[in-house]
Amino acid sequence: MRAPLLREKKSWFLLFILLFAVPVTAFTADDEALITRASQVLGPLPASMPSAENPITPEKVTLGKILFYEPRISVDGTVSCSKCHPIPLYAADGLRKSIGHNCTENPRNDPTVFNAASQISEHWIGNRTSVEDQAKQSVIGPPAFGMPSYESVEKVLRSYAQYQALFKAAFPSDKEPVTVDNFAKAVGAFERTLVTHAPLDAFLKGNKDAITAQQKKGLAAFMDQGCVGCHFSPFVGGQMYQKFGLFAPYWEYTKSKKVDEGRFAVTKSENDKYVFKVPVLRNVAMTRPYFHDGSVDKLEEAVWIMGKIQLGKDLPKEQVQDIVAFLHALTGKIPEDVMTVPLLPSLE
Amino acid sequence: MRAPLLREKKSWFLLFILLFAVPVTAFTADDEALITRASQVLGPLPASMPSAENPITPEKVTLGKILFYEPRISVDGTVSCSKCHPIPLYAADGLRKSIGHNCTENPRNDPTVFNAASQISEHWIGNRTSVEDQAKQSVIGPPAFGMPSYESVEKVLRSYAQYQALFKAAFPSDKEPVTVDNFAKAVGAFERTLVTHAPLDAFLKGNKDAITAQQKKGLAAFMDQGCVGCHFSPFVGGQMYQKFGLFAPYWEYTKSKKVDEGRFAVTKSENDKYVFKVPVLRNVAMTRPYFHDGSVDKLEEAVWIMGKIQLGKDLPKEQVQDIVAFLHALTGKIPEDVMTVPLLPSLE
Repeated sequence: MRAPLLREKKSWFLLFILLFAVPVTAFTADDEALITRASQVLGPLPASMPSAENPITPEKVTLGKILFYEPRISVDGTVSCSKCHPIPLYAADGLRKSIGHNCTENPRNDPTVFNAASQISEHWIGNRTSVEDQAKQSVIGPPAFGMPSYESVEKVLRSYAQYQALFKAAFPSDKEPVTVDNFAKAVGAFERTLVTHAPLDAFLKGNKDAITAQQKKGLAAFMDQGCVGCHFSPFVGGQMYQKFGLFAPYWEYTKSKKVDEGRFAVTKSENDKYVFKVPVLRNVAMTRPYFHDGSVDKLEEAVWIMGKIQLGKDLPKEQVQDIVAFLHALTGKIPEDVMTVPLLPSLE
Repeated sequence: MRAPLLREKKSWFLLFILLFAVPVTAFTADDEALITRASQVLGPLPASMPSAENPITPEKVTLGKILFYEPRISVDGTVSCSKCHPIPLYAADGLRKSIGHNCTENPRNDPTVFNAASQISEHWIGNRTSVEDQAKQSVIGPPAFGMPSYESVEKVLRSYAQYQALFKAAFPSDKEPVTVDNFAKAVGAFERTLVTHAPLDAFLKGNKDAITAQQKKGLAAFMDQGCVGCHFSPFVGGQMYQKFGLFAPYWEYTKSKKVDEGRFAVTKSENDKYVFKVPVLRNVAMTRPYFHDGSVDKLEEAVWIMGKIQLGKDLPKEQVQDIVAFLHALTGKIPEDVMTVPLLPSLE
């Protein structure tokens, strides 16, 4: 009686191996293949986003963080960088289009400043060369701070003894450190530290449990379907321009109220009609609404539209959900010191 | 030769005693007298500002702090409590009058929410009975959030699963916890923790070096001249109403652009014409501009005007400066957890 039982036990054991152990081994091999493949197109996230023209220093970052919250350099005293980039909302404002001084509507949707410095340019149509250029132009830009001139901004900043000291500390070799160029450098240096590490990064480093099975499926689909053709780099976008609507005019699928010609406004080249910068997808699940005009509210809808008009594919609902799950794995941890606010200088 | 020298030394020693030691002793006695006297009218600052109707609980404070930053319950998505009460500016906005949804100007200057819950009522004319009442009315008030109804606010909040969980945790015995009344209680509970301890408090507790000699002179003058007649309590104000302009119409001295009849708008009583709530003076040096209409920029000017039209005295410049120095001793430390921002719930 014992021999058959033993044999039976052995059979059960073999069946167990076949049913569970082999798939587990295969699954692990899949994970490794997925990590290897994803690492090639996405790559490891850096600790910051440095610039040769504007090296990051602690003094610049300290000053830049204070200036990020400063509304007294706007024409009506209501606009600071943080107005359109509030940290509690992942540094985007949740509006279709941001509202600047005196209720001026911005032409396009507000991207988060997290990871933004990694891009080839700033703004949807690339009309700002860097975060520094963006910061500088915003203070006199009509839809943002709306100040009459750079000099008027400098005059305000110079009236605060504490700003004079902070600028001097950040730009010690400058004879007159309180300038709009240095304002832009300080804000830029702060923004160059705003990298948010996400579950995807832990996964790419080898922690196989950092993302869920559905997120892994979504990551695979994101690569298989060709999303990475534009959304590559550790920032999952931000590295190139692309026509919005390769397979059909975008406004036929989005809820856009008017047609935006995109980068054509910058270059006046016919080739740039309806061309926009490919957005960084990090924290995309936290920064609705979507697209250059914020015309779509739900990530699921945005993903399906992208498949339809950028890839010419009618992505099945389940795959859209997998990709959305993957996009949640891009929701990063905001650096701790960014979660604290500074006190602004006082005139008293 | 030795005896005269000794005698001379003794004389020097006596002279030293007369010149320095005696004044030092007197000075210390003065400090003690000043502390005793000031403690009677100002009294010890409490750790929080409790309410029998709305007991402070950690769960309410957690929720209230998140709601404090929530703009999606405003009609244009731009207004949260923190818009007009930004922590980096000591929870006031630095404007003459706050700007609510769609650029709507508020009727009066924005007081800080720090220490505000200590007052007999809220707003300059006392038309809000408590911080809870203020929070509740602000969401539908035309110059603030501008929502069409309380129901519309509740609908937004209920659409977030995370808010449902947070409200449930804060109001566990409520069948439907996500209500505007509970919104108001949560924000109120958070605001009831916003007490800022200042150098004056350390001084009143016996640390004689906590404030400067000039600040001590200023504190004495503040009491001698009669400022404490209205600005009493640990919050240095907020406990009574008073006519603005007892000795002369206020608009003859301020830079007011139009005459505000003050509390008359609430009570319709002739006695309440030009009557306003006496403001809390804690953090006054950090919250310019001054008066109900924010018509005066400098604290020195505000103090002189107060002397002139509330006390009928032309305070000499030096005394004004001493009082301003004392008012700086009311600039408090913002609680550490208030210097961090929360993340807001996401719909994804």
